[in-house]
Amino acid sequence: MSFQITAQDSNSSARCGVLKLNRINLTTPLFMPVCTNATPKALDFVKLKEIGFEMVVCNAYHLFLRPGSSFIRENFNGLHEFSKWNNAILTDSGGFQVWSLGSSVKIHDNGVLIKSHIDGSLNDITPELSIQTQEELNSDIMMIFDDCPNPDSEYSLLLKSINRTKEWARRCKDAKKTKNLLFGIVQGGIYDDLRELSATHMTEIGFDGYAIGGLGLGEGQSKTYEITRNLDKLLPKNKPRYSMGIGKPEDILESVEHGIDIFDCVVPTRNARNGTLFSFNGKLNIKNTKYRDSSEPIDPNCECSICKNYSLSYISHLFRCGEISSIQMMTEHNLFFYNKLIDSIRFSIDNGNFREFKKNFLERYLNES
Amino acid sequence: MSFQITAQDSNSSARCGVLKLNRINLTTPLFMPVCTNATPKALDFVKLKEIGFEMVVCNAYHLFLRPGSSFIRENFNGLHEFSKWNNAILTDSGGFQVWSLGSSVKIHDNGVLIKSHIDGSLNDITPELSIQTQEELNSDIMMIFDDCPNPDSEYSLLLKSINRTKEWARRCKDAKKTKNLLFGIVQGGIYDDLRELSATHMTEIGFDGYAIGGLGLGEGQSKTYEITRNLDKLLPKNKPRYSMGIGKPEDILESVEHGIDIFDCVVPTRNARNGTLFSFNGKLNIKNTKYRDSSEPIDPNCECSICKNYSLSYISHLFRCGEISSIQMMTEHNLFFYNKLIDSIRFSIDNGNFREFKKNFLERYLNES
Repeated sequence: MSFQITAQDSNSSARCGVLKLNRINLTTPLFMPVCTNATPKALDFVKLKEIGFEMVVCNAYHLFLRPGSSFIRENFNGLHEFSKWNNAILTDSGGFQVWSLGSSVKIHDNGVLIKSHIDGSLNDITPELSIQTQEELNSDIMMIFDDCPNPDSEYSLLLKSINRTKEWARRCKDAKKTKNLLFGIVQGGIYDDLRELSATHMTEIGFDGYAIGGLGLGEGQSKTYEITRNLDKLLPKNKPRYSMGIGKPEDILESVEHGIDIFDCVVPTRNARNGTLFSFNGKLNIKNTKYRDSSEPIDPNCECSICKNYSLSYISHLFRCGEISSIQMMTEHNLFFYNKLIDSIRFSIDNGNFREFKKNFLERYLNES
Repeated sequence: MSFQITAQDSNSSARCGVLKLNRINLTTPLFMPVCTNATPKALDFVKLKEIGFEMVVCNAYHLFLRPGSSFIRENFNGLHEFSKWNNAILTDSGGFQVWSLGSSVKIHDNGVLIKSHIDGSLNDITPELSIQTQEELNSDIMMIFDDCPNPDSEYSLLLKSINRTKEWARRCKDAKKTKNLLFGIVQGGIYDDLRELSATHMTEIGFDGYAIGGLGLGEGQSKTYEITRNLDKLLPKNKPRYSMGIGKPEDILESVEHGIDIFDCVVPTRNARNGTLFSFNGKLNIKNTKYRDSSEPIDPNCECSICKNYSLSYISHLFRCGEISSIQMMTEHNLFFYNKLIDSIRFSIDNGNFREFKKNFLERYLNES
């Protein structure tokens, strides 16, 4: 693998890059739609490719439980053939699921005993098993199996946690048999010194890229930004950086400014299912009665197939009727918006006006009507 | 309008025809996906067009209540522009909803007082209002507002009902202002003489086509077939005939044999949402554990984009995960199957081997593995 920086903003850490994988050359900054179960929510991979996405994030733990990573390996030689998504796949290791499904787990130094949310079965997920799972899935980029504690945990617990993550990270690297990439994950909660220590752990072991984990879990926007800003100085410039679970459009812009290259977030798809739509003029909610009578598209300047075809009143009507087709339409529009946003960010960095783009975007976007 | 019979089966009443509308020439036999709220369920109109459907059925009563037919007229000049479906639309009048939403209505000779299932408002739907609604929606084919009683009603009630339908049919015809087509509806429950009388009523008034209403409501398959067979002799051969709500593949074949040209049914879309998939080798249910491990498509001979891309194990996995994308996939496949079935029926009539096609199809289809 190689990561080449193709453009560097002169006023910030924002940069464009090309991450060369066997399958595809990824252009960064890059946004990954969340495809936990090997599908986008309420859309299909064909649409994702049409929109222009180059990589998605799937979840190794979910797919280990169902349909089983060994099944996918034996029958399809991995996720790409199983799901017919031919662009890149990054798999999250499952560390985050230990946190989000918290009540069902027991963390020990060797791994995590976790109770399946599907059938109640107990599974002992170790760093080695996580890598085995991800290699069975044959994802292009794997994540280390990390310990992801509550962000409001005590300092002493977080210190113990990042040391555990360090050990697990080393075991993951040792367990890796394929040439698929492996990214480290920096944890440490809200403590700058722990984040710094965890970053040192990761860079000392050495990975193909570095992720910031445990963000967006309630620490607050300014803390998210502060952690990202501080880590910008500590993480190697010549490797891709991934801010896990981030984020809202404003969070992506801020993170790009601090040198982040890769993003994923449930916001565009989850918000679509709740009726919230993105546009460069700000968010809008389809439930608002004023859209019932609007023959305008979601965004008159948007070039997605939904905005080219359908009115707000039509989508609003379908949503009020509970029609699944409205969810599909809003999901497609929101993902198109996210792809357009990240394209525009890349374009602005390439053209040396990222800061100006960011300022102009936020003025329009946050000034919601 | 003109309806030309382009092929007549020599062994039965099966025929092919072309129904010329301003918008499009429809080729019959024809199947309409159900688009009650001006959308297919879990799919969009773009896909319906790709699959090859020429007409859909929308519901005038539902659209009268929400978003309002006058709204659609004023802002979009009708359903086509509102929904961006440029092929033909047939609207059902709402007579059937009086039956299916039975507890909320009071039928009187002038019309039906019906309580909205959406907001509880009372609306007095008259034949004139139904036609006005359908003309506001600007559907290509309108249906008369009929009285659709329970199929197990007493003879005397059914007699009263078909006389009421006769009066309402006349009032619908008188109320019609546009050149859009208007079809009559034959009612009469399970009684041959009432069906015959109702058919006489309709043909005496004279319509652009004739529908059989009140079928598939629990009267039993053999009774459905008997009613269809008897009406074949009574309805004019030179007008299109529409069997409302019919049906399953075997019902469509039987009805075509007795001279029916147009069909609509919720089965392909509703079954998809329940996991039942159609194929020329019989139905299958995605919940069956044997499909979890199958790397085969739903039907190896099917040319739909789902069968060309995805395995049963992938669809099964998505369905078990509760992913909306699995519903979309199964809906698309089932509608593709229905379109292929009706295409094959037309082809067989054109080629003079309808009976043989029917026999061969049923042998394969009903011999489910």
